[in-house]
Amino acid sequence: MISTMMTQPLLVDDILKCAGRYYADVEIVTNMPDKSRHRTTYGEFAKRSTRLAQALTEAGLKREDRVATLCWNHHVHLEAYFGIPAANGVLHTLNLRLAPEDIAWIVNHAEDRFLIVDDVLLPLYEKFADQVNFERVFVVSLTDEGIPDGMESYEDFINGVDGEFELPAKEENDGCGMCYTSGTTGKPKGVLYSHRSTVLHAMAVSMPNNMNVSNHDTLLPVVPMFHANAWGMPYIATMCGAKQVFPGPHMDAESLLDLFEQENVNMAGGVPTIWMGITQALDAEPDRWKLPKMKMLVGGSAVPESMIRRFDQNGLEIVQGWGMTETSPLVSLSNLKPKFDDDSEDDRYARRATAGLPSPLVDVRIQDDDGTVLPWNNEDMGEIQVKGAWITGEYYNLPKSEDKFTDDGWLRTGDIARIDPEGYIHITDRTKDVIKSGGEWISSVQLENEIMAHEAVAEAAVIAQPDDKWGERPLAAVVRKSGQDVSADDLKTFLQDRLEKWMVPDDYVFIEEVPRTSTGKFNKLGLRQQLLK
Amino acid sequence: MISTMMTQPLLVDDILKCAGRYYADVEIVTNMPDKSRHRTTYGEFAKRSTRLAQALTEAGLKREDRVATLCWNHHVHLEAYFGIPAANGVLHTLNLRLAPEDIAWIVNHAEDRFLIVDDVLLPLYEKFADQVNFERVFVVSLTDEGIPDGMESYEDFINGVDGEFELPAKEENDGCGMCYTSGTTGKPKGVLYSHRSTVLHAMAVSMPNNMNVSNHDTLLPVVPMFHANAWGMPYIATMCGAKQVFPGPHMDAESLLDLFEQENVNMAGGVPTIWMGITQALDAEPDRWKLPKMKMLVGGSAVPESMIRRFDQNGLEIVQGWGMTETSPLVSLSNLKPKFDDDSEDDRYARRATAGLPSPLVDVRIQDDDGTVLPWNNEDMGEIQVKGAWITGEYYNLPKSEDKFTDDGWLRTGDIARIDPEGYIHITDRTKDVIKSGGEWISSVQLENEIMAHEAVAEAAVIAQPDDKWGERPLAAVVRKSGQDVSADDLKTFLQDRLEKWMVPDDYVFIEEVPRTSTGKFNKLGLRQQLLK
Repeated sequence: MISTMMTQPLLVDDILKCAGRYYADVEIVTNMPDKSRHRTTYGEFAKRSTRLAQALTEAGLKREDRVATLCWNHHVHLEAYFGIPAANGVLHTLNLRLAPEDIAWIVNHAEDRFLIVDDVLLPLYEKFADQVNFERVFVVSLTDEGIPDGMESYEDFINGVDGEFELPAKEENDGCGMCYTSGTTGKPKGVLYSHRSTVLHAMAVSMPNNMNVSNHDTLLPVVPMFHANAWGMPYIATMCGAKQVFPGPHMDAESLLDLFEQENVNMAGGVPTIWMGITQALDAEPDRWKLPKMKMLVGGSAVPESMIRRFDQNGLEIVQGWGMTETSPLVSLSNLKPKFDDDSEDDRYARRATAGLPSPLVDVRIQDDDGTVLPWNNEDMGEIQVKGAWITGEYYNLPKSEDKFTDDGWLRTGDIARIDPEGYIHITDRTKDVIKSGGEWISSVQLENEIMAHEAVAEAAVIAQPDDKWGERPLAAVVRKSGQDVSADDLKTFLQDRLEKWMVPDDYVFIEEVPRTSTGKFNKLGLRQQLLK
Repeated sequence: MISTMMTQPLLVDDILKCAGRYYADVEIVTNMPDKSRHRTTYGEFAKRSTRLAQALTEAGLKREDRVATLCWNHHVHLEAYFGIPAANGVLHTLNLRLAPEDIAWIVNHAEDRFLIVDDVLLPLYEKFADQVNFERVFVVSLTDEGIPDGMESYEDFINGVDGEFELPAKEENDGCGMCYTSGTTGKPKGVLYSHRSTVLHAMAVSMPNNMNVSNHDTLLPVVPMFHANAWGMPYIATMCGAKQVFPGPHMDAESLLDLFEQENVNMAGGVPTIWMGITQALDAEPDRWKLPKMKMLVGGSAVPESMIRRFDQNGLEIVQGWGMTETSPLVSLSNLKPKFDDDSEDDRYARRATAGLPSPLVDVRIQDDDGTVLPWNNEDMGEIQVKGAWITGEYYNLPKSEDKFTDDGWLRTGDIARIDPEGYIHITDRTKDVIKSGGEWISSVQLENEIMAHEAVAEAAVIAQPDDKWGERPLAAVVRKSGQDVSADDLKTFLQDRLEKWMVPDDYVFIEEVPRTSTGKFNKLGLRQQLLK
């Protein structure tokens, strides 16, 4: 190779240095458990993250050793996002919504050496403490509770070093972060991000065609920092010098709306359930909050078109993103190209409700059951497969399985989609959620969106039920809005104008709520067990 | 390394694919020699670039073989930017402003195998053809002139293949582009960009804190495509799906203004000389052009603050960039952080006239003559040194010299600067242009800016002249605006209010024009030879 360029690795360290140098006085704000606001700056944050790196190194942390966090979204968790990789360790964010025994299983599988835990989450930790074996446990004091015996104060830990520390040299492919997928089937699987993948993902997401983040923005990740690195938002904001606002443990709509208003948040990210709650709160008290012009990044599961319309009425722009833990997570975002400026309002909304346009440097394709790569048009549907520098190529410490990766090295996402000639991805289903009726595929996502467009419907989930004549037929589980009434016949009539006749479900059940996975997605497996005897 | 991420190389190929897939109908427009407009699209461009890659491969091009271009800025040059790297070759852009014997020297040093040359530049090629030995010469027909004997038609070359071609696999550190610095001293030196450095540079420059490029923009590189890859603009625009407009051989102010207006250009890049001409044309005929809201990226040499003010009066925003061929070229851009929103207008203009804030992933420092790294404040000045993934670590086929690289691997830029506590770089001089008067450094750049702020001055260049008492004193070479009169005494009086007393030059000479290097910079070496006997 004859290139004369320097061989400079892409490191999370560079993002940390950037914020500390150029944005030393930009704020990082946390809503604390008592609802007071903790305020710090990137200058302070950079010093404390470096102290954490030094303390971990002096505690014997070696290259790529795992350090677990069991924390809400807050400024100390942000220090862990940078201090652990800076020490050449791997940040392993534990999902506090999992069953304690699952958390324990994950800790043991990842061989985590240390734990950083919120004091308010110690009751959860106690539930699995006897099943794991951390060398040391550091407690983040968000309240005035003392530190239990056998544990240490996080503050004492990082204040026990002198802060004069040169970050250890590292390679860009060294691991820096780790997340386990919640895994609806089988055991959770670990994805291990590298410094390189984390930096490239942050750069790509910040680009104007994607999330468009600059030092003029204020970001609030509602998405937990234990879900795919809060979609990279902490890395992106820090790289760009954007103000960061963290909700702490307060994820209810009112607390979030207060934060949006008072901290002038103009970009937030979270799953649809969160935004559902936000709209309801705004509808209930339309004059209570004066919100800035905001962009909401929504992912995790499909956003119904009706929700995008409702938010627009409140001056809030929803941008749908698509990806998964395995993809860092951004694959695509539903921003509109300028050529659609003159399209009808309906067409524009329909396009904004897709999974969007893939980011540069991520390659996507669709493949049918026989392994044939399908063309991009308005008909062909297949499993969507992904390749790229921030896409996982395997799972941590697991043999490579054929049902997750193709022979030629693409990640099999398990989602069924078509890609239109413009490159927009239209997700129709999870592989396991497909309804095959009389040889035709029916998209449960499409049905759910159409049912949720009815004004009396709060939520709807559609599953396949066995049918003697058609093989499978859709069964719609519907949650009515409180105080509203709607019958199966009403819905059938409503849907007849909106769908092909054969797609309209014959069967409806009305339920109190749709069961959800720990990441807030519809738990269709649970729904099936509940409804199909 | 335990990361599970795919090992996916960063390749220019990905940018090419991106534009072909997602922006197939976005336009690429060229102002042809006869001033007709050639119009094509990214869809067509992607096919033709792939054909070029195939034709080169079938012609026997091997990994990292060099293919030279001697071309203006136009759509076929853009194909070469992508088709040559796609074939795993190295695009070597020849500077048509150099002396023919220097071009020949460079071609031979780079060992270029093929040449792609504009028909309108054949007279230049003929001047050095007998000193070089290209295997094949492909002529781009921009006019109706025929192809001379012994040369081939570029169109025939790329139409001689079937277009069904899978791009060869390559590594991200493979060379993809090459530029020689014009070198005021000694022979020109080659810088060889890699696929990796080119992609990272394009991503970084497109970010909102830097140039902020999206698919809503229309870019026009006035900077030649043979200067540091036209500052990466062709790669950036193609990655982002922005419309591209090329001036062809017409670099005069009127032709450019026509293009800006008629093609709705909102971003352009070029050296200050170009913009100087543009303001003069706008001042002369203020009602002739209706320009869109534009951002002008200006680099290559320092932009006087007065020019930024004048452009603002026309609704055109100047953003100053700093870098060099060795740095791909972006190191820093003079965008303002939001914290300066409330500063006085004067302070804001002063800051916009700096070399700006470094990009993420580029590391900068200043060092004094003894090799001591200096702090960032408002006093300390030293040589600015640079490190990063798109910075050269050596020169092509040359032994590594101490005056260009430090022992610990930083590029020595030869520019003297201070870096303020906010991280903004204030370039005060080229090392060799420093004026040391009575032990104090005087910045020739600062003097030039202040002199050019006088309304009767068109241009000014300041050099050091030997002085018995002070060691060195500044000598100002001043170009008056046509029809304007100004004396040495007038200037001295004017400057006394704006500078420290000891900095004001005692000596002034009035000249017709400042001599320039082939890249449009003030040729101070030439000026010294001319003025100091």
